[in-house]
Amino acid sequence: MKALLLIAHGSRRKKSNDEVVVLAEKLKATCGDQYQIFEAGFLEIASPAIATVIETCIKQGATTITVLPYFLNSGLHVTTDIPEHIEEAQQQFPEIEIKVTAHIGASELMLSLLIDAANSVN
Amino acid sequence: MKALLLIAHGSRRKKSNDEVVVLAEKLKATCGDQYQIFEAGFLEIASPAIATVIETCIKQGATTITVLPYFLNSGLHVTTDIPEHIEEAQQQFPEIEIKVTAHIGASELMLSLLIDAANSVN
Repeated sequence: MKALLLIAHGSRRKKSNDEVVVLAEKLKATCGDQYQIFEAGFLEIASPAIATVIETCIKQGATTITVLPYFLNSGLHVTTDIPEHIEEAQQQFPEIEIKVTAHIGASELMLSLLIDAANSVN
Repeated sequence: MKALLLIAHGSRRKKSNDEVVVLAEKLKATCGDQYQIFEAGFLEIASPAIATVIETCIKQGATTITVLPYFLNSGLHVTTDIPEHIEEAQQQFPEIEIKVTAHIGASELMLSLLIDAANSVN
């Protein structure tokens, strides 16, 4: 079974974290052909933490986990912190395949999204 | 003259900040009909800071500044910190119209971007 795990930074503001959970639920509604398990987790501040939510995926039967970093830039969270958490999880669960995609800010669609936002104002 | 000001969080990793500057340059290449000035600034850690880059826009002749928050969630940075900086700038420059758009994570295109990212892996 394949799991898609959306990882965000985490906020002290609950509503901000809830947005990430809602996005994971929307992905479930649209990417059900490719993945059977959908979860959201957080790098800092909010819960569930990455290690916890990876275990949650495995308990549901995940054999492959695709981690999608919900981050805009290739800062230290993306280049260092998330890879470290994933490496730890991979060592703990060597039988599970854990992949990390590019952070979403690297998407070629991001410029279109920004253009749309810029043009929607004036 | 209208300025578009892309505001990101700011990182200790220079490459991450450079990505934001490049995005502002790409917006310049595509949104030149609506805006004449394009700048990038940072809430924390990196420079130029918001107050500085707003002055930069004004020195170039901006009479309207549209601030586009390059943030994914409605955390405290978006709901409190950026509005406070903008309010201060507005008080300092009452003759300038400063507008703040929704943060880009609120875009309806974000789900499409995530779906594309999720589907591009397996």
